[in-house]
Amino acid sequence: MQDHDIETDVLIVGGGPAGMMCGITAAQFWPSRHVTLIRPEEEAVVPCGIPYIFGTLGGTDEDLAGRAPFLAAGGQILTGRIASADRNARTALLEDGRRIAWNRLVIATGSTPFVPPIEGRDLQGVFEIHKDYDYLDTLLSETLPGVKRLAILGGGFIGVEFADELRKRGIEVHLIEQRPHLLGASFDLDACVAVEQRLTALGVRIHTGATVEAITAGTDPKRVGGIRLNDGGTLAAEAVLIAIGTRPNTTLAGDMGLTLSRSGGVWVDGFQQSREDPHVFAVGDCAHKQDFFTRHANHALLASQAAAEGRIAGMNLYGLKLPRSNAGSISVYASQIDELAFGVAGLTEASAENIGFEVFTGDIRMPDHHPATMPGTHELHCRLVFDANSERLIGGQVIGGPTTAEILNILAVAIQLRATATDLASFQFGSHPRLTAPVHPIVAATGEALRRRLEKP
Amino acid sequence: MQDHDIETDVLIVGGGPAGMMCGITAAQFWPSRHVTLIRPEEEAVVPCGIPYIFGTLGGTDEDLAGRAPFLAAGGQILTGRIASADRNARTALLEDGRRIAWNRLVIATGSTPFVPPIEGRDLQGVFEIHKDYDYLDTLLSETLPGVKRLAILGGGFIGVEFADELRKRGIEVHLIEQRPHLLGASFDLDACVAVEQRLTALGVRIHTGATVEAITAGTDPKRVGGIRLNDGGTLAAEAVLIAIGTRPNTTLAGDMGLTLSRSGGVWVDGFQQSREDPHVFAVGDCAHKQDFFTRHANHALLASQAAAEGRIAGMNLYGLKLPRSNAGSISVYASQIDELAFGVAGLTEASAENIGFEVFTGDIRMPDHHPATMPGTHELHCRLVFDANSERLIGGQVIGGPTTAEILNILAVAIQLRATATDLASFQFGSHPRLTAPVHPIVAATGEALRRRLEKP
Ligand SMILES: Cc1cc2nc3c(=O)[nH]c(=O)nc-3n(C[C@H](O)[C@H](O)[C@H](O)COP(=O)(O)OP(=O)(O)OC[C@H]3O[C@@H](n4cnc5c(N)ncnc54)[C@H](O)[C@@H]3O)c2cc1C
Ligand SMILES: Cc1cc2nc3c(=O)[nH]c(=O)nc-3n(C[C@H](O)[C@H](O)[C@H](O)COP(=O)(O)OP(=O)(O)OC[C@H]3O[C@@H](n4cnc5c(N)ncnc54)[C@H](O)[C@@H]3O)c2cc1C
Repeated sequence: MQDHDIETDVLIVGGGPAGMMCGITAAQFWPSRHVTLIRPEEEAVVPCGIPYIFGTLGGTDEDLAGRAPFLAAGGQILTGRIASADRNARTALLEDGRRIAWNRLVIATGSTPFVPPIEGRDLQGVFEIHKDYDYLDTLLSETLPGVKRLAILGGGFIGVEFADELRKRGIEVHLIEQRPHLLGASFDLDACVAVEQRLTALGVRIHTGATVEAITAGTDPKRVGGIRLNDGGTLAAEAVLIAIGTRPNTTLAGDMGLTLSRSGGVWVDGFQQSREDPHVFAVGDCAHKQDFFTRHANHALLASQAAAEGRIAGMNLYGLKLPRSNAGSISVYASQIDELAFGVAGLTEASAENIGFEVFTGDIRMPDHHPATMPGTHELHCRLVFDANSERLIGGQVIGGPTTAEILNILAVAIQLRATATDLASFQFGSHPRLTAPVHPIVAATGEALRRRLEKP
Repeated sequence: MQDHDIETDVLIVGGGPAGMMCGITAAQFWPSRHVTLIRPEEEAVVPCGIPYIFGTLGGTDEDLAGRAPFLAAGGQILTGRIASADRNARTALLEDGRRIAWNRLVIATGSTPFVPPIEGRDLQGVFEIHKDYDYLDTLLSETLPGVKRLAILGGGFIGVEFADELRKRGIEVHLIEQRPHLLGASFDLDACVAVEQRLTALGVRIHTGATVEAITAGTDPKRVGGIRLNDGGTLAAEAVLIAIGTRPNTTLAGDMGLTLSRSGGVWVDGFQQSREDPHVFAVGDCAHKQDFFTRHANHALLASQAAAEGRIAGMNLYGLKLPRSNAGSISVYASQIDELAFGVAGLTEASAENIGFEVFTGDIRMPDHHPATMPGTHELHCRLVFDANSERLIGGQVIGGPTTAEILNILAVAIQLRATATDLASFQFGSHPRLTAPVHPIVAATGEALRRRLEKP
């Protein structure tokens, strides 16, 4: 009798961006191998699209992630949850009792929202964001209808995006952030202020420098009625969204005896391989992230980073290729509030200086089309941060129109290829009145950085 | 008595993109130097915006190029035309008789439209596109009103852009192109066909593989009445736009005894310095362009390239810096017909193979947002061309929405930093549902290229 029910070469545990991208890549790069992905979700949602279910998209069904590219590449999807895995036997046990034999295991179990031990967190109407179709559908159809006032705890990306989407439903949204500014961990001051101003103009009430002491019940003692702040103030609210961070799902990896890093993720090397077993990889939110610049932990958990790690593992499953290793996280992300897009790649000036870099910076504000009379023109603000010693680009922030995220991706590529200010100042970029600025904002901001540097005594 | 009326350190002849950018850069990098730019135009138009004067923008005044950044950087503008320059005396003579003493001369005299010796070219109603405010204003207010049918000779960028803009005025536009496809010199087939289909759907009549034998008079023997094609066919038209290419303006440089390259432009080295005189530089459309890949002549005359050359000269005027030299033209450009944006960076598959490269390519079609239910989603087609030996990226074409040109700029940076397929396949890119595709199209197309390559025997 064989000791397993299913056999595969590659078993990927988890069907989020990391697992899916790993699956597609593995099927592409190792076409002779059998690639199986297992996840509990029948239908997976696009995680980054979740806020838009509640406004722009209008429904959970509008935010489904496709499985077609993976299936087309020859992969197979199983529905289920892995209860445990055995590194010696190279098998994994499903919760339903089936056993899968594998040859390479990729742990892509992702993350779940962190809920602090705050008083009142179990009241009805208090919720977090789980990347789960049914859960989100219930939020949309049962939790939110009738809510007139809602408080969001946490002024990071998720809080800010939900604030913009929920106010579109006519809800009075209060956004509570401990730091002096929204998005303060991710951006230098200009961008934070731009986002705050836009949200305020849209009717969102922002409470920065404020801590929530307790979530309080209303007339119904089982339901939320409001929150109490550290300054003693109170706020009535029929619903509370907790969005203060996520934690890696590492139970499976921990039970397998894999090393977890101090930051909480599964320890992985540059090929996403676990320390204990070259046949076991970890990718995405559940894996430890090393910062591109410092090798310290990088705490930004991003779908794009998860996907990049999935690709790297996928390319290295059956043979390591140094150029295809993980050079470390640079944290590239963008978002949009109303028409205002904003994002960051790499280090901010503040984060670079905190680490100990000596930096020089360049700022430029310009229209994103030329002439600026072109329809669809947005004001664009580009701010670049260079290491003063190597002259290398180490970060950039962009606020602008629809091209913002791709301009950040130019910065991401330039950072990864270790471009210097001089490189960027003399580079060729294309331009067209209906599509771009006449002088590329990266070139202009670099010129400004070099000019300021010359001025310095 | 002094032998000149005006004295400057740097004299820039020409106020187009090359001259202006050189001026701004010179003022930034050499703040102690006096920088003067001379041009005949009181008000300069944005050259790339010219087609849009006739449709989208609606007026010549909507397409003015600013002088503010140059003045703010400390530069000075003179209005006038240089008749000749003396390299020994280091002076230049204005047409009005004034003499300017200079220490560094930058020739940025640009290009003018090429008009072939075709029968009927002097008839009223036959015109080209000059980058001149008054000329364009006259076209708009006198030549075009009343025109119901118009023929454009030349299906390159300018012809295609004018076709789209003029049809918006209700003019029946006929576009005549000698080659089998519009834009055939710049794009692989897919993009040409996409543009042809869109223009046809918009009512533009396309005549490819057709040569114009003569422009013919109408009832008024002084005015154009139509054109005669090589197959004997005729076409009635009350106006004819000739847009078949431009030629560098090199009279000034030639008269100064500077070497012209065989391609017609002023010979320049990697610092934009002339062969004969290290104090004399040439930039932009009037300067010879060496191809990034082959060192052969590159015939694409682009504002973005002109601006990059202006920057390079500006940075090297008083001391050469190797990293700030011109690595050669890669030809990055994009345009948009209706909502369809399209562009190219570097070599097409066909041009690479013509040169003798062994290539591998990857194609991907995907929505440019995720989920694709997001408002503003466009289909995006990305095609990448890699050198088979080095695995380096040598070109790419993108058809898509408003982010198309910035995606091409990512490719431009990657080409200039000599990124390989492996680099691009494992890179980090940011993603956001409202702003980008979930998997970056460059990563996806690279993955596809590597996959196809593995499949090859
Ligand atoms: C509201 C919201 C908005 C966001 N917006 C952005 C954005 O715009 N840009 C960006 O870059 N990032 C964004 N993120 C972050 C992004 O969603 C995550 O970084 C990404 O989902 C991580 O992908 P992953 O595959 O590692 O993990 P997850 O997406 O968490 O997927 C984990 C998968 O593993 C499965 N799993 C877990 N345990 C098991 C088990 N034992 N057996 C089988 N399967 C298991 C889960 O069910 C799931 O399928 C956002 C996140 C949220 C919540
Ligand atoms: C309709 C149209 C659309 C275009 N669209 C695009 C596009 O979308 N993207 C792109 O990259 N490129 C585009 N181009 C090409 C782009 O316009 C040129 O590459 C660019 O203008 C070249 O800049 P330049 O400064 O070298 O020369 P020019 O713009 O030709 O400027 C030359 C300057 O020199 C002056 N001059 C000449 N002789 C003298 C003299 N003796 N004394 C003083 N001054 C003198 C002229 O008056 C002028 O000011 C387009 C061109 C046209 C015509």
